[in-house]
Amino acid sequence: MRMYDLILRKRNGEELTTEEINFFVNGYTKGEIPDYQVSALLMSIFFKKMNSRETADLTMAMVNSGDILDLSMIDGVKVDKHSTGGVGDSTTLVLTPMVASLGIPVAKMSGRGLGHTGGTIDKLESFKGFSVEMPKEKFMNNVNTIKIALAGQTGDLAPADKKLYALRDVTGTVDNVSLIASSIMSKKIAAGADSIVLDVKVGDGAFMKTKEAAFELAHEMVEIGKNVGRNTIAVISDMDQPLGLAIGNILEVEEAINTLKGQGPEDLLELCLTLGSQMVILAGKAKNPEEARDMLLNTIKSGEALEKFKEFIKAQGGETDVIDDTNKFEKAKYIVPVKAENSGVVERINSQKIGLIAMELGAGRATKESIIDLAVGIVLNKKRGDHVEEGDIIAYIHSNDETKAEKAKNDILDNYVITKEYNNEIPLIYGIVR
Amino acid sequence: MRMYDLILRKRNGEELTTEEINFFVNGYTKGEIPDYQVSALLMSIFFKKMNSRETADLTMAMVNSGDILDLSMIDGVKVDKHSTGGVGDSTTLVLTPMVASLGIPVAKMSGRGLGHTGGTIDKLESFKGFSVEMPKEKFMNNVNTIKIALAGQTGDLAPADKKLYALRDVTGTVDNVSLIASSIMSKKIAAGADSIVLDVKVGDGAFMKTKEAAFELAHEMVEIGKNVGRNTIAVISDMDQPLGLAIGNILEVEEAINTLKGQGPEDLLELCLTLGSQMVILAGKAKNPEEARDMLLNTIKSGEALEKFKEFIKAQGGETDVIDDTNKFEKAKYIVPVKAENSGVVERINSQKIGLIAMELGAGRATKESIIDLAVGIVLNKKRGDHVEEGDIIAYIHSNDETKAEKAKNDILDNYVITKEYNNEIPLIYGIVR
Repeated sequence: MRMYDLILRKRNGEELTTEEINFFVNGYTKGEIPDYQVSALLMSIFFKKMNSRETADLTMAMVNSGDILDLSMIDGVKVDKHSTGGVGDSTTLVLTPMVASLGIPVAKMSGRGLGHTGGTIDKLESFKGFSVEMPKEKFMNNVNTIKIALAGQTGDLAPADKKLYALRDVTGTVDNVSLIASSIMSKKIAAGADSIVLDVKVGDGAFMKTKEAAFELAHEMVEIGKNVGRNTIAVISDMDQPLGLAIGNILEVEEAINTLKGQGPEDLLELCLTLGSQMVILAGKAKNPEEARDMLLNTIKSGEALEKFKEFIKAQGGETDVIDDTNKFEKAKYIVPVKAENSGVVERINSQKIGLIAMELGAGRATKESIIDLAVGIVLNKKRGDHVEEGDIIAYIHSNDETKAEKAKNDILDNYVITKEYNNEIPLIYGIVR
Repeated sequence: MRMYDLILRKRNGEELTTEEINFFVNGYTKGEIPDYQVSALLMSIFFKKMNSRETADLTMAMVNSGDILDLSMIDGVKVDKHSTGGVGDSTTLVLTPMVASLGIPVAKMSGRGLGHTGGTIDKLESFKGFSVEMPKEKFMNNVNTIKIALAGQTGDLAPADKKLYALRDVTGTVDNVSLIASSIMSKKIAAGADSIVLDVKVGDGAFMKTKEAAFELAHEMVEIGKNVGRNTIAVISDMDQPLGLAIGNILEVEEAINTLKGQGPEDLLELCLTLGSQMVILAGKAKNPEEARDMLLNTIKSGEALEKFKEFIKAQGGETDVIDDTNKFEKAKYIVPVKAENSGVVERINSQKIGLIAMELGAGRATKESIIDLAVGIVLNKKRGDHVEEGDIIAYIHSNDETKAEKAKNDILDNYVITKEYNNEIPLIYGIVR
């Protein structure tokens, strides 16, 4: 088999066989096939697409390129949740204790990552002493006893995906739905998930900018799930404005705790209930979304979800007094209100820009070397559709640098669009693909 | 400027600017832009094409990537001829002395190359003592005094083309007409040609397999010539059977000498007259093809072309006694006739296969390291449309190895298609593009 022939075949619009896909993924991972041939193949795939069989084969070839976590020591159905990424998204922090308190095992791998704010691990380090470092046995044991544990990326999961993604990133071959879908799914499958609930975000602050693109990606991933024997459900949700109110690490953790206390923002809770219902159903704990939703809501009302969260933080070494009193969290030096300069209705909040402003304040990493400031960020006070009068506070900036705070103020004003007439009804949930 | 943006722009079907094309060609030549980005761009060009402005810019960027020969010391219009390559093509050997004997300067660069037989330099080394090694001054002086000189590839001509071609060759991006045309034209222009006559071969033994593809390439190259100020004319000629009768180095030289003596194969002479007429016109020595053709034919009748050939070989140190008596050329040990196994008309000669058989006999290089046997090859005795009786000799094998000769015999029989009915009129000249 020659890589040259694979390029030519795909270029000419032919279907690659399972053997051919394995050949190129293995060869590339081992360094036997050069970058320049793989980038030519990727560009051919961009133009000529892959069908669902090829996409499933690519996914499994990437899964098989590295370690596959064995979660068989954990009792019950392992349901994982994955978000395609957005601004101010703290659903994982709220959702996992809710689900775990229903007895569904949550064995989560998470990362730090680049972006507007840190990853889930960074956020959880808001709790002094919290650590994801633990022996595999302790991890498994925690999941079996308290139903929830979070570890950093261990092992060498889907190395082919890492290598391919790095190449796609510099060769203009990122935005192909088969390549995006297989990349996401390969990592989840390698991390040992039996079933997967996907949160596909759509809008200005998301990777998928249009409803059509988001549904296409959702269908592609659900199709992969079908083809490789992992029950997969995708929820398409709004990211045309930040989710919830907080953008920043400690700020989002506070918001998550408030939500678990029944005092969180409506949209964040609603998304957690929607995603959570699907997880509960996939785990076999409820028959329909209504039943699942009631069960989940009850974990908040009864305080069980909050207790589970405390238990989880404590089990991994974190101090939990801040959960009872979130005022004990470290605070930024300057908390600067941003005031509306005219009256009307909030028509748009440019989410991506708001995310970048938070990153510039120090909430996220621009490069791997950046150091995150856990306390800083933005807390929105007005969201899309809210009426504002001139002088009303639309957001608060949390900063440890006065100059940065001043710049952020102007930037936030630039990215809040306030109009007289508003009739832009964007739903929180666009639909569910299964 | 970032290579990533160029890839994305071309991928999205946009036109690249002159600056962008120079940026990528220069950056790649200098090793500043990696292979994998260039191959992604090439694949995008394959799918989204380049227009004639982009193609001309690419050509000149490749010309300017290295040395450009300065032929200004040579008097008159420098007309170069280029063939896209075929089997048994000895036109250069016949054509250049014909044209030179009309006072048109022939300052030719040639190579050795891979393929069915050696390149022009290999063929001319059939003359003992012949050498292309000489100081630049002697080369210029020879052209000015005797009107003809042949040198090896000197300097670093169009290094960008070499590097790009090597990459295209392994990434499935060879067969794009803009890339092929700019590759050919850049080398000719860097070699100092004022005007260019192209012999675009079409058929089984050529790179272009169909008439349509050949005309498309011809138009593209003529268009480049227009855009960069080099008069360019393309002749589209048949390569569905070998040209002339001889395939092999000494064998083709003998055939060329016979043609200069007025005793050569008709098709070879006719192609030389067609190509030569265009060269004579571009050089400003004749007003129309008829006049040019008469002038060229007269160089043979008068013996001037043969004399010019002798003068040329002698000026570069070659022994010329073999020109007067070609029996003095080195001969292969075994000359084996191939006899027809049935009667009928020759309908097809699979040119490419015949070329490969000659190469296997030792006439050409399979790799750069191969050593050419100048004496071996094939001489056809029957061509397309010829009637044959069972037992008639259709070809002679010239070999220095009996086993190879035996294998070649069977291979040749396999690639001669003899039928009862024949009505396949393929022209020698398909047309002229100017």
